[in-house]
Amino acid sequence: MLNKEFSVKTPKEIATDLEELGTQEIISYLETSTKTIAQQVFFEFSPHVIVDIFPAITDDLFKKIFTKSDTHKAARVLSRLDRSRVEKRLVVLPRVTSREINDFLSYNENTAGFLMETNLLTGFKEDTVDNILSQLRKLGDRRILTVYVIDDDDKLIGRVPVNYIAIATPEQQLEELMYQAPSVQAMATREEVVNAIQTHALLQIPVVDIHSHLLGIIRNDTVLSASREELSGDLQTLFGAGKEEHALSKASFAVKKRLPWLQINLVTAFLASMVVGFFEDTIAKITILAIFLPVVAGQSGNTGSQALAVTIRGLALKEIRIGQWVRVAKKELLVGLVNGIAVAITTGIVVFFWANSLGIAVVIGISMILSMVIAGLAGAVIPIGLKAIGQDPATSSSIILTTVTDICGFLSFLGLAAALSSALGIV
Amino acid sequence: MLNKEFSVKTPKEIATDLEELGTQEIISYLETSTKTIAQQVFFEFSPHVIVDIFPAITDDLFKKIFTKSDTHKAARVLSRLDRSRVEKRLVVLPRVTSREINDFLSYNENTAGFLMETNLLTGFKEDTVDNILSQLRKLGDRRILTVYVIDDDDKLIGRVPVNYIAIATPEQQLEELMYQAPSVQAMATREEVVNAIQTHALLQIPVVDIHSHLLGIIRNDTVLSASREELSGDLQTLFGAGKEEHALSKASFAVKKRLPWLQINLVTAFLASMVVGFFEDTIAKITILAIFLPVVAGQSGNTGSQALAVTIRGLALKEIRIGQWVRVAKKELLVGLVNGIAVAITTGIVVFFWANSLGIAVVIGISMILSMVIAGLAGAVIPIGLKAIGQDPATSSSIILTTVTDICGFLSFLGLAAALSSALGIV
Repeated sequence: MLNKEFSVKTPKEIATDLEELGTQEIISYLETSTKTIAQQVFFEFSPHVIVDIFPAITDDLFKKIFTKSDTHKAARVLSRLDRSRVEKRLVVLPRVTSREINDFLSYNENTAGFLMETNLLTGFKEDTVDNILSQLRKLGDRRILTVYVIDDDDKLIGRVPVNYIAIATPEQQLEELMYQAPSVQAMATREEVVNAIQTHALLQIPVVDIHSHLLGIIRNDTVLSASREELSGDLQTLFGAGKEEHALSKASFAVKKRLPWLQINLVTAFLASMVVGFFEDTIAKITILAIFLPVVAGQSGNTGSQALAVTIRGLALKEIRIGQWVRVAKKELLVGLVNGIAVAITTGIVVFFWANSLGIAVVIGISMILSMVIAGLAGAVIPIGLKAIGQDPATSSSIILTTVTDICGFLSFLGLAAALSSALGIV
Repeated sequence: MLNKEFSVKTPKEIATDLEELGTQEIISYLETSTKTIAQQVFFEFSPHVIVDIFPAITDDLFKKIFTKSDTHKAARVLSRLDRSRVEKRLVVLPRVTSREINDFLSYNENTAGFLMETNLLTGFKEDTVDNILSQLRKLGDRRILTVYVIDDDDKLIGRVPVNYIAIATPEQQLEELMYQAPSVQAMATREEVVNAIQTHALLQIPVVDIHSHLLGIIRNDTVLSASREELSGDLQTLFGAGKEEHALSKASFAVKKRLPWLQINLVTAFLASMVVGFFEDTIAKITILAIFLPVVAGQSGNTGSQALAVTIRGLALKEIRIGQWVRVAKKELLVGLVNGIAVAITTGIVVFFWANSLGIAVVIGISMILSMVIAGLAGAVIPIGLKAIGQDPATSSSIILTTVTDICGFLSFLGLAAALSSALGIV
């Protein structure tokens, strides 16, 4: 993966250049280059490019790219494609390779098992440094950073970083150098993997089955990109687009992922409509109230979203724990109150001149403060509450929040207007 | 940072336990433990805990924690505190330490210079493996993974991972083993650092000044947390909360960061009100239109946000380039159309029975399709457009999008209702 020369392009750079070209040019590049280069470049393509060129790949080219490739990478790429098509293709590969790829494909995309690689170096605790160094030389794989120590039963019992081995004496045994080896289960989620790597400040983490048998390792670059996918996925989940969708996913896939959420949201929207509906008579008398509905709903929605975003991030980065909900709630209540008063003043002034009515200005001001306090509080409490009951805060927070902010916003504004209309001389 | 024993807690775990206790308990723990443990545990505390306990730290304890500490970590922690207070404290430290910490503090928090550490091992290309190994043994720092090769002028010319050195012969010179060393400038942004680490699949990246002099390195765990802060910060920026705010930041800080955005958003909200205002007469005649305003605005807002989230993520993960905007726009247009038709049918049916009017059902259905197509298109084009003119898509996309979706939603719904009211027999 590394170049000996400054002037040579990395496979990643070649891949980026090729992506600018058409499918046919990419295919001929892969067909005419050596097996090693074809493999390295192919696995650097963006997912959507691979989806695009896949139908144009002949069986021969498929064999060239996937035989003796990194089966882990191969599986990651193939998992993005249609499963039945992939299975038809896999039969052209040597049986061992296709079985390995199939094993990976059987893990869920968000688990440690799916992220792991299986090429690693293991040793027993009696092995000497000399012995391990000669194995390292034979393997010649410069990506090996750690030797994992296993017992006779293949159970993981420790680890020795290669840089410890470098400065040890030849006759020392792994047992003397070995450290605790934190590991993750194959079924652990992407999030758990990222947490484990961060907690123990590791470069890579071993993956084990429930009996502690060593299955593979997850490297730091895999963790980095998994962590980026995970966190940025929260953003999409928050709007009901689903973590799995990418910017160049097929439109049909996007519709499948997004439409259910839009339909559920319709229920929310109609609930808000019902609240407005209660005050149909008031609106019929004072039409200008309808004009300011977007202002009230917009500002309480924004206040809630700000509190929600900050709280969800705090939970994702483990800066806050569930037990700290009172502290977060207090902060958001205070922020909602202060911002509410500030926004109420601006809004009140604009509305006073626009509607030429002190009554409506006062009503919108008070309802702004009320609904922004509730929105801030809801933005903090909803995600923490969902986390507490074991739900992903990113998935459903936003829809619950919108329901709360819309209903509170309309109820406080129209309710106050109806109740105070005669007192404040609005009509 | 690592334990020799399985049973001993890591500094991180001790810190997490202590965080449950009060300031006084934390302080006495730090005062009574050894310097090494006090330092290791202190630097594992969450930022807000450090802010809380900082005033209770005596000058003696400050000296204990910060003298001969990792100046890089020290600066990261101190950068979260009030600058003038920190400067008053720094004078109690040995002059070398306080100068080093001050140097770090002078880098912006989002730059490579701020993220780097300065303890690293360098060699000349004539140095032998034997020579380097004895230096490594003397240093005993097991976190050193790479030897950086510099010339007589301190310029970075290559790198040799310690695991290459492990399997080399003692008399080999670094020159024979050395590889290209990708680096970043001290002023490079956090995002550029993450990109460089990902592109070159590195464990750590050297930081250089404009003359290629080696200044320090950034380790993979620093990159991982920087990348997590960066990406999750996008979520907050999108709602105008600012990347710098954390869930337990002070309320006054939160107000300062969020209020300007709320006030700007008020302008947007009043623009939407003006659109509704154009149709005051129509609403006065057909009050039920006001009831369905939240539905139209809500659904086009949601559609836009979904497209926006997917596009911003695609840009952040570098899955799409600016040049691909037509492709993304086409996809979102299609998704908006299909989802629009589906949502229009549901909405139309509900509205037909609710309002008992085929006319209003048809009007809301058509306006739903129109506004959802525009919203999807806007959600894709706005962030890519902002990126193209060199702006951060996360910062202003959302506000522009809301303006577009609110105005289009209200304009299409009320406009169609006004235009078709007699034709469809709405009144």
